[in-house]
Amino acid sequence: MDTEKNSEAKAARMPESKGKDKGKAVDWADPPVVFTKATPVPLPGQRWKKGVAIADFVLRLGAIGAAMGSAANMGTNEEQLPFFTQFLQFHAQWNVFPMFQFFVVANGVVSGYVVLSLPFSLVCIFRPQAVAPRFLLVTLDMVMMALVTAAAASSAAIVYLAHNGSQDANWMAICQQYTQFCSNASQAVVTSFLAATFLTCLIFLSTLALKRNRE
Amino acid sequence: MDTEKNSEAKAARMPESKGKDKGKAVDWADPPVVFTKATPVPLPGQRWKKGVAIADFVLRLGAIGAAMGSAANMGTNEEQLPFFTQFLQFHAQWNVFPMFQFFVVANGVVSGYVVLSLPFSLVCIFRPQAVAPRFLLVTLDMVMMALVTAAAASSAAIVYLAHNGSQDANWMAICQQYTQFCSNASQAVVTSFLAATFLTCLIFLSTLALKRNRE
Repeated sequence: MDTEKNSEAKAARMPESKGKDKGKAVDWADPPVVFTKATPVPLPGQRWKKGVAIADFVLRLGAIGAAMGSAANMGTNEEQLPFFTQFLQFHAQWNVFPMFQFFVVANGVVSGYVVLSLPFSLVCIFRPQAVAPRFLLVTLDMVMMALVTAAAASSAAIVYLAHNGSQDANWMAICQQYTQFCSNASQAVVTSFLAATFLTCLIFLSTLALKRNRE
Repeated sequence: MDTEKNSEAKAARMPESKGKDKGKAVDWADPPVVFTKATPVPLPGQRWKKGVAIADFVLRLGAIGAAMGSAANMGTNEEQLPFFTQFLQFHAQWNVFPMFQFFVVANGVVSGYVVLSLPFSLVCIFRPQAVAPRFLLVTLDMVMMALVTAAAASSAAIVYLAHNGSQDANWMAICQQYTQFCSNASQAVVTSFLAATFLTCLIFLSTLALKRNRE
């Protein structure tokens, strides 16, 4: 009875050769004992969340690059002209406009925050079901997104005025003289808006992951 | 047999008097049939979510007031001066600055959106467990928050320049002449930032509600 059961179990272990050896008294050797790590099978929702967490991490790297790049670009932005006119000073620097100062500070703060948030993002990769770090990240991301959007928008207003001036307020465009200064400032504003876009995508992804919690 | 069962059932209905009347052949009258409304007992999480949904609705009303007020304030902002100087025009109107035009459009769009979002907020009050309308709202709220923040920040930059001017760019302050115009614009910017704050609180509340889904 015991032998019969044993051979039956062995046949069940080798289903592909079952038909071929049917009826023959082949005594299968016991299979070697294999030690496997006890890895639980991930649920489909968990795997999906892991993908979201990895996308979150990559987007954070992009946001760091954009915010840090725009802060550096604006913070080193100055131009000295070789001539001196009646109305314009001969030296343009980023800190003549308080909005550009705010821009540099805000982008610096945001890039610092995103660097500090990377460990929390890693926690979300390794523990896709964790809710607390994700909620913390989505709240702070939102504040930082508002900050960087405000900085980029106020600097964009100044860049627009520097390019076009305002006839009605009698403000002259200064970009005919300070071409390099204006071009750097415009680049910095664009990359800052890019950082805001990255943060918006981050918030969207995190909210989607929180929404799927019940699944 | 049937009678025995019946009396047993009656005794089971009145467990507190079972011991007292044990052995006595008291024939209990059938209890009157009471029609009750089938109201399910709300879970604590559900009640909490209902509170969040009501706060969401109230905050939305505040955001409508702030955004609509700032759009109206800026959109009707003009001032005519009784004199004419060499440098300044005698008529200041909101649409001389493209940032103010963007401000009016953005605040109008946001207030229109928040009005249209009220029915979805009501759905969240009456069905606190609903996830889809809340997710839709939080996504659109985020976009609108970014829009209104950008509008308020760019207009704040212009208001700052109008108040203080910029020595280095040779842009003169115009608020010495157009006091009423500048004061209205400042008010509009402040109320617009208030609308952005309301929207930020809305997103925070909705995210909190989505986070608590698993509970």
